[in-house]
Amino acid sequence: MNIKAYGALAAEQPLKPLDIIRRAPSAYDVQIDIAYCGVCHSDVHQVRSEWAGTLYPCVPGHEIVGRVSALGGQVSGLQIGDLVGVGCIVDSCQSCADCGDGLENYCDHMVGTYNGPTSDSPGHTLGGYSQQIVVHERYVLRIRHPESQLAAVAPLLCAGITTYSPLRHWQVGPGQKVGVVGIGGLGHMGLKLAHAMGAHVVAFTTSESKRDAAKALGADEVVVSRNADEMAAHAKSFDFILNTVAAPHDLNAFLVLLKRDGTMTLVGAPATPHPSPQVFSLITKRRSLAGSMIGGIPETQEMLDFCASHGIVADIEMIRADEVNTAYERMIKGDVKYRFVIDCASLTA
Amino acid sequence: MNIKAYGALAAEQPLKPLDIIRRAPSAYDVQIDIAYCGVCHSDVHQVRSEWAGTLYPCVPGHEIVGRVSALGGQVSGLQIGDLVGVGCIVDSCQSCADCGDGLENYCDHMVGTYNGPTSDSPGHTLGGYSQQIVVHERYVLRIRHPESQLAAVAPLLCAGITTYSPLRHWQVGPGQKVGVVGIGGLGHMGLKLAHAMGAHVVAFTTSESKRDAAKALGADEVVVSRNADEMAAHAKSFDFILNTVAAPHDLNAFLVLLKRDGTMTLVGAPATPHPSPQVFSLITKRRSLAGSMIGGIPETQEMLDFCASHGIVADIEMIRADEVNTAYERMIKGDVKYRFVIDCASLTA
Repeated sequence: MNIKAYGALAAEQPLKPLDIIRRAPSAYDVQIDIAYCGVCHSDVHQVRSEWAGTLYPCVPGHEIVGRVSALGGQVSGLQIGDLVGVGCIVDSCQSCADCGDGLENYCDHMVGTYNGPTSDSPGHTLGGYSQQIVVHERYVLRIRHPESQLAAVAPLLCAGITTYSPLRHWQVGPGQKVGVVGIGGLGHMGLKLAHAMGAHVVAFTTSESKRDAAKALGADEVVVSRNADEMAAHAKSFDFILNTVAAPHDLNAFLVLLKRDGTMTLVGAPATPHPSPQVFSLITKRRSLAGSMIGGIPETQEMLDFCASHGIVADIEMIRADEVNTAYERMIKGDVKYRFVIDCASLTA
Repeated sequence: MNIKAYGALAAEQPLKPLDIIRRAPSAYDVQIDIAYCGVCHSDVHQVRSEWAGTLYPCVPGHEIVGRVSALGGQVSGLQIGDLVGVGCIVDSCQSCADCGDGLENYCDHMVGTYNGPTSDSPGHTLGGYSQQIVVHERYVLRIRHPESQLAAVAPLLCAGITTYSPLRHWQVGPGQKVGVVGIGGLGHMGLKLAHAMGAHVVAFTTSESKRDAAKALGADEVVVSRNADEMAAHAKSFDFILNTVAAPHDLNAFLVLLKRDGTMTLVGAPATPHPSPQVFSLITKRRSLAGSMIGGIPETQEMLDFCASHGIVADIEMIRADEVNTAYERMIKGDVKYRFVIDCASLTA
């Protein structure tokens, strides 16, 4: 089916209206009329080919929410009209150990929601800055939030699961002291989720001006990371630090805040490497520096259900599709609280 | 008591014979007549002040074995004449969580066997390149190997525990594929120990010439890390990699060999940082880069008993004390299989 979308024809061009084709649903497919799509930092990196290998036309968007508008004959458990979501993954091999463990995000053949290989036109996947998407049922999530919150649920599909997955994997919970570095799209979700999991949560920000906002998001304490005295007061005290900052920065400053056997997990992917961490920062307290990428489909459903039961959504600023180029510039400057979401109804204009 | 030792008076001077003083044993002290002392890379870094803060005179040596020659009145479980060892630690606070967990190596007040704070003359600890040492019983290890192996047991006190501790902590055992990077003093112990723990062991070396030696030490496979094809054949396949190389090198080359949730642990401390690892190497398979430093006293005893029951000792080259400056030069070039051990009887000369 021909539908409206918003994307770029080349790395150096702004996004603009495009016409794209979605496949007709096959037996296990779910056709979704997209209501809203979140704007992720990855969208900018990909559409501008700042990571290798962007294919054009590029339609970004992997924080997709909407309603089921058609179902393949073999799809079970979904009805036309159900509220559903699609995150960063629309296919995987379904047979490897990672897929078997419900961690399709680590499958070597994971297909991203945009810029991934597909037999559909034009030969690579096209994302959620569009009116409609057709996805295999395995990768479709149920949304149990009230419909009034639907737009603010969209960012949970990437920013939410990207922070939820490591918090769960490293078993964050009551009695633990947990840091969240960076208060942006990812970090603001990390604060809400770590707080809801019962940890003592410390937000790290470079901006004195974000103190009150971080507390409102769930931080028990806020540390301005440029302030050496404030940092030193937290030396060797953290069980876990979730580092959401994609810009290259000094990792040692945070590693030394971990207690013995503590882990700092990176979820931001910088275009150029961070300065090299000191080996002494790792060996002196048996610390770990780890990475985590999105999350698997079962844990994405678990995260959505956790958020629904705790009343958690993202803090968003709604935009029209034709505002997305401006939104990118503002996002790069950190000028958004905390996630832009495209109202996909604006694509008909 | 006045005894003979071998040490340096300044960073730029060679080691030479020195006379030093050991305290008389107090109630909980064990006086040990040192038979042999291993030569560790840390000795060179410290005696040459390549790490910050070396105090002079500096007597290195923390791979100490010998016989009990006197006991304080409150010492239990040891007899005059017992074979004992002292490793990297001669004191700690004994009251923090780390000490409580038997991980005195991570205590903030851990006192190293040399260059650590003490009220003994000359105000800092002096190590095992000496005829005798006096140590609180808590830090004295029992040696259950045959006396004929005593010299080859010495390196277990640092090289052995430094590799044993992370292999145990990251639960290396049967069914796992484990890499050991570097075949030197630490690496050759890592190969022996990982093999004895039942893992499938792969040795990484830059030297084609070390292939046969690595297999003799316990490697099931040997990979020459300069060979890209050999490396690629092992992509995403390791549960754990123990990296013993202290020289700065490309960590990415090894990180990408880890399977999902795999960990590479660094036990070598380079004087300058490694090139910064790629964040993508960590996030794409939820990998961890960790560090580990020596080991605690209870696990050092466990390691010695494990080695005694598995017939494991270090491969050593015995030297006289007056050969230590030459030995340092050879060790820096990697020209030793695999650990120098000083015959402390040579100190009387």
